Amino acid sequence: PPGEVWLIGAGPGDPELLTVKAVRALEQADLVLHDALPGRAVLQHIRSGAEVVAVGKRKGAAPVPQARINARLVAGALAGKRVVRLKGGDPFIFGRGGEEALACEAAGIPWRVVPGISAGLAAPAAAAIPLTHRGTASAVTFVTAHDETGALPALDWEALARTGGTITAFMALSRLDEVALRLLAGGLPPTTPVAIVACATLPGETGLRTTLGTCTLDARRAALPTPALVVIGNVVGVLAERRAPGLGEVQHAGA
Amino acid sequence: PPGEVWLIGAGPGDPELLTVKAVRALEQADLVLHDALPGRAVLQHIRSGAEVVAVGKRKGAAPVPQARINARLVAGALAGKRVVRLKGGDPFIFGRGGEEALACEAAGIPWRVVPGISAGLAAPAAAAIPLTHRGTASAVTFVTAHDETGALPALDWEALARTGGTITAFMALSRLDEVALRLLAGGLPPTTPVAIVACATLPGETGLRTTLGTCTLDARRAALPTPALVVIGNVVGVLAERRAPGLGEVQHAGA
Repeated sequence: PPGEVWLIGAGPGDPELLTVKAVRALEQADLVLHDALPGRAVLQHIRSGAEVVAVGKRKGAAPVPQARINARLVAGALAGKRVVRLKGGDPFIFGRGGEEALACEAAGIPWRVVPGISAGLAAPAAAAIPLTHRGTASAVTFVTAHDETGALPALDWEALARTGGTITAFMALSRLDEVALRLLAGGLPPTTPVAIVACATLPGETGLRTTLGTCTLDARRAALPTPALVVIGNVVGVLAERRAPGLGEVQHAGA
Repeated sequence: PPGEVWLIGAGPGDPELLTVKAVRALEQADLVLHDALPGRAVLQHIRSGAEVVAVGKRKGAAPVPQARINARLVAGALAGKRVVRLKGGDPFIFGRGGEEALACEAAGIPWRVVPGISAGLAAPAAAAIPLTHRGTASAVTFVTAHDETGALPALDWEALARTGGTITAFMALSRLDEVALRLLAGGLPPTTPVAIVACATLPGETGLRTTLGTCTLDARRAALPTPALVVIGNVVGVLAERRAPGLGEVQHAGA
C-alpha cells in the first residue's frame, strides 16, 4: 500500500515552537526531507533509523529544485514510507506547500498538512508587536517581496498601503527600498513606524525600529542578517521600546 | 518578588496544535485564565494545584470585561504568581494580547508572549487551502469583520479587494453580506472562490465552498456553527474539491 506525505510546519526555529503534532509526526516518520531552517534541536525528534535529507537552500550550494523535492516525496510514499516534508514556518504561507500537495494529488498519494508558527507570527511576538490592536489596526497582511522569478510580486502595493492594516513583509530586507517607495506612493506617511526582526527566536535574533521614510538607510547601516521580517504600521509603536522578555533580544538601533 | 504574566496562544482547538512551549508553560503555571475555546484536552496540561479561571464568552453569560481580566492578570503577578493567560489562536492576531501586555507594562509586571497557531492558519490547512501559491496569490490579509463596537471595522475594503491577495476574514459569518458587498464594490468578481471553515480542528468541523456572489445565501442555508473563518480568493480553487485528509471533515455543500 502507498505511504503518505505529511507537510509539516516546523515554526520559526525555536524548537519549543514546534507543535505537539509536529513532534509526534517526526517521531514516526520513515523519511524526512527538511529545509535549511529547522536546526538540530528540531531534527532530534526524528527517530533513529529514519532517512533524513536536507533539501533547503544552503550557502555555496545550488538549491534543490522544487520538482526534484516533489518527485522525492512521491517516490518515498509510493515505496510505502511515511514521508515528512519539514518546512520552516507554516507550509501554506510562502512555504510552497500547495505545490507539494498538488504533486501528491497528481500521483494519488494521501497527504496532510500540519500548520506551523509562521515567522509572520513569531517575529512580531519576539519584538512585542501586536499585529492587530483595537483602534490601531483591524487587519494584517502577510506579503513577500520576492516572487518566483526573484522580482517584486505583481501586487497592488498602493492599494495595500491604503487598506489601513498592518503590513508584514517576508524576504524584504534586500528589497526594502522598492517596498518602501511603493507604500509611500500609496499614501503611507514617511513617519509610519517600521520594525525589522532578523533571525526571530534563533540565537542570533536581532532587529531595529525605524520609520518607513528612513528604513532603507537604517537597515543598510545595521547590516542585519537573514531571515528577516519587516513589520510596517502603527502597531509597531503600541508597546513602544519594550521588548517581550524571554523571547530573545531585539535591539532598537533605529529611530 | 513579583511574578510574571505569559500570554499564550492555545491554537485553534486541537490539543496537538499546542506548541511545546505552551504545554511547558501550562505545566508550570500557578494561575491560568483561559478563554472559552481551549477545551479539556488542552487544560489537562495544567498542573494539579494551580488555580484555573474561565474568562471567555460563554452562551447565556455576560462576558468578563477586558479590564477585569487585565486586573486579575496584574493582581496574580503582584502576588508572586506565574500567571498564564491562555487564549484561543494567537494572542497578537485578533486576540487582544496587546491590551493585556499594555496592562502589564503599566503595572511594571514582566510579561512574555508565546505565539500560537491562529485559526487563520489552521482553518485553511484543514480545508486544504494554501493561503499563498505561486502565480495565484503572493499576499494574504487577515481581517476581522467586527470591531470593538461590533460594527464592520473602518477598513478600506475596496482597497483590500484591489490588492490581489487572499483575504481571510475572522468572525465574518454573521456579517458576510456586508463583507461580500464591499469586496464586490472593490472590484472582486462574483465568481471569486470562497471557502467557509467552521470549528476548524474541533470535533464539529464543517464547511462549504462557494463564490463571493452567492456566499451569503449559501452560508445562511447551511446554518454553519461558529467560530468560522472565511477564505476569499483564487487559492480556494488550487486544490479544488480535495480536503486535507486527517484534519477532519470539510463538507463541500456549496457551488
